[in-house]
Amino acid sequence: MVERRVTLRDVAQRTGVSVTTISKVLNGGSDVSPQTRALVEDHLDRSGYRRRLAPVGTGYLQVVVPNLAGDWVSGIVSGIHDAAARACHGLSLVVNDDREGADPGWVDEALRRNAIAVVVLVDAVPEASRARLRARGIPFVLIDPAGDPTPDVPAVSAANWSGGLEAARHLLGLGHHRIAAVTGPATSLPAIARVDGFRAAMTSAGRTVREDWVRFGDFSAESGEREARSLLAADEPPTAIFAGSDMQAVGVLDAAAAAGVAVPGELSVVGFDDLTLAGYVRPRLTTVRQPLREMAAQATKTVLELVAHPRLERPRIELATRLVVRESTAPPSR
Amino acid sequence: MVERRVTLRDVAQRTGVSVTTISKVLNGGSDVSPQTRALVEDHLDRSGYRRRLAPVGTGYLQVVVPNLAGDWVSGIVSGIHDAAARACHGLSLVVNDDREGADPGWVDEALRRNAIAVVVLVDAVPEASRARLRARGIPFVLIDPAGDPTPDVPAVSAANWSGGLEAARHLLGLGHHRIAAVTGPATSLPAIARVDGFRAAMTSAGRTVREDWVRFGDFSAESGEREARSLLAADEPPTAIFAGSDMQAVGVLDAAAAAGVAVPGELSVVGFDDLTLAGYVRPRLTTVRQPLREMAAQATKTVLELVAHPRLERPRIELATRLVVRESTAPPSR
Repeated sequence: MVERRVTLRDVAQRTGVSVTTISKVLNGGSDVSPQTRALVEDHLDRSGYRRRLAPVGTGYLQVVVPNLAGDWVSGIVSGIHDAAARACHGLSLVVNDDREGADPGWVDEALRRNAIAVVVLVDAVPEASRARLRARGIPFVLIDPAGDPTPDVPAVSAANWSGGLEAARHLLGLGHHRIAAVTGPATSLPAIARVDGFRAAMTSAGRTVREDWVRFGDFSAESGEREARSLLAADEPPTAIFAGSDMQAVGVLDAAAAAGVAVPGELSVVGFDDLTLAGYVRPRLTTVRQPLREMAAQATKTVLELVAHPRLERPRIELATRLVVRESTAPPSR
Repeated sequence: MVERRVTLRDVAQRTGVSVTTISKVLNGGSDVSPQTRALVEDHLDRSGYRRRLAPVGTGYLQVVVPNLAGDWVSGIVSGIHDAAARACHGLSLVVNDDREGADPGWVDEALRRNAIAVVVLVDAVPEASRARLRARGIPFVLIDPAGDPTPDVPAVSAANWSGGLEAARHLLGLGHHRIAAVTGPATSLPAIARVDGFRAAMTSAGRTVREDWVRFGDFSAESGEREARSLLAADEPPTAIFAGSDMQAVGVLDAAAAAGVAVPGELSVVGFDDLTLAGYVRPRLTTVRQPLREMAAQATKTVLELVAHPRLERPRIELATRLVVRESTAPPSR
């Protein structure tokens, strides 16, 4: 049996709401009561209604970022811009500093401006927001979400676990075995994955991971400095520290300098990200490179495929990281 | 006498082109011959035709950036985003890596997508492009253009001359008088203004500026390193270097480290910009802060005023810089 396309008239009949009002909901009009909007969006969602697609090149792809500071975000926005431009779509930019994703401001904006699709740098999208986007047929994709993945939410990340594994193997290969780890929040999946990869490398090399040497912080330089200061104050301190971000690694370098510990002579340091900064601090930072532009390009390609084929499976993609060896790692001196 | 609003019908009569075709030109349609488009745009321009304004909050403000690498650009884009959001305008982002402005790709994009206004980070806008935007009633503003200012082009910059003056006064105040300057291209007005401010401070303090110690480069770290290496190789090298950008200052730090010259013990270094990087290099960089977010907010406010009042005078605004003293400057040791 061929499935008949659901029309606005069908939705009007089932909800008792006029086609005009349903159109308003679809076009993000503001003069609709929240109750009516919820009713209509719910029916649109369940009925499988799909907007007719805008012709290629007329719509805007919306990108939602937590801020524009630093080259982690700008690397990703560059990658999205290039992929959107290749598909002749404009790029609209929304800054939404609620990284945890509870604030639906960017969803309102996507509906109001009729975005063709959204690439989102938030950690999670609440079900209510997902339903509103579904009802309007606006697909979205997450980049590097910290939150628990929901099966129907497509996402693109770096291979965080493999990156942590590679960092630890580099240090083990240099002869280190007294290795500590300092990473992001214990609630962040990327932070946990990086440390788990580190653990896997240690364990498979027959080394024990000291639990008091695995420190969760917040990815900032201050966090790295604080944890490293405490680690370096021990009687028998670690000879190497794997940091979960370049900013944390910079904090580790600061703590080492303050404690008179030479890097890499007495302490090796590995970061994660490969920000521009990594090449400018002294010593230059050995780090795990995240392929930001490639992640962004892949996310954009994925979400644009969902525009054309809404029933495609929602993929979760991880792109390989690469260890960049610079000056902050060396064999241990003791 | 009250001035009558020019209508499309008037333009049609004068050009012999149909109202339908004129509409296509106005809406960025692609099926119009270049000759007809030029004819219509020229007449629209000269007749003073103005589009009816889109209601507040429905249009996109377009921002054109040369790249998204580094926090100079991201600071500016943040400021524009916030100002646009306050006015309920969406922000669309176009990357146009031709900083010199010869490529009109961003102009095509503004016309095709019917931008309400454009904030542009290019050095200059050719007259042909200005005419096309004028014909469509799309105002634009430049941020920190390197090129020769045209009177009718609004622009917002940092007070580059005053910044250079302040940097030199700081070094003179510490007791330096053997001071060199390394800055951007000799064709860049901001680079020249920074050096001119430096000269003014030196001269008014009764110090001579050695012309072989004023070096024009290209604002990059490599450029700073190259010029500093040559300056430090002299028998009687400078005791201080004023760099025209933070990246050049970082290059100067590298050259000093390579030559075994201690900063700030034997050489003081001042940068320009106050990038995030300035706080993370060692020693932390004394630098002239450009108020990027404020420049961006002012540019956005200016161009949105021109949307509402097209006949306002096109202003050129300079915002004050501020010296940020960190660790790379100290009194001379000899």
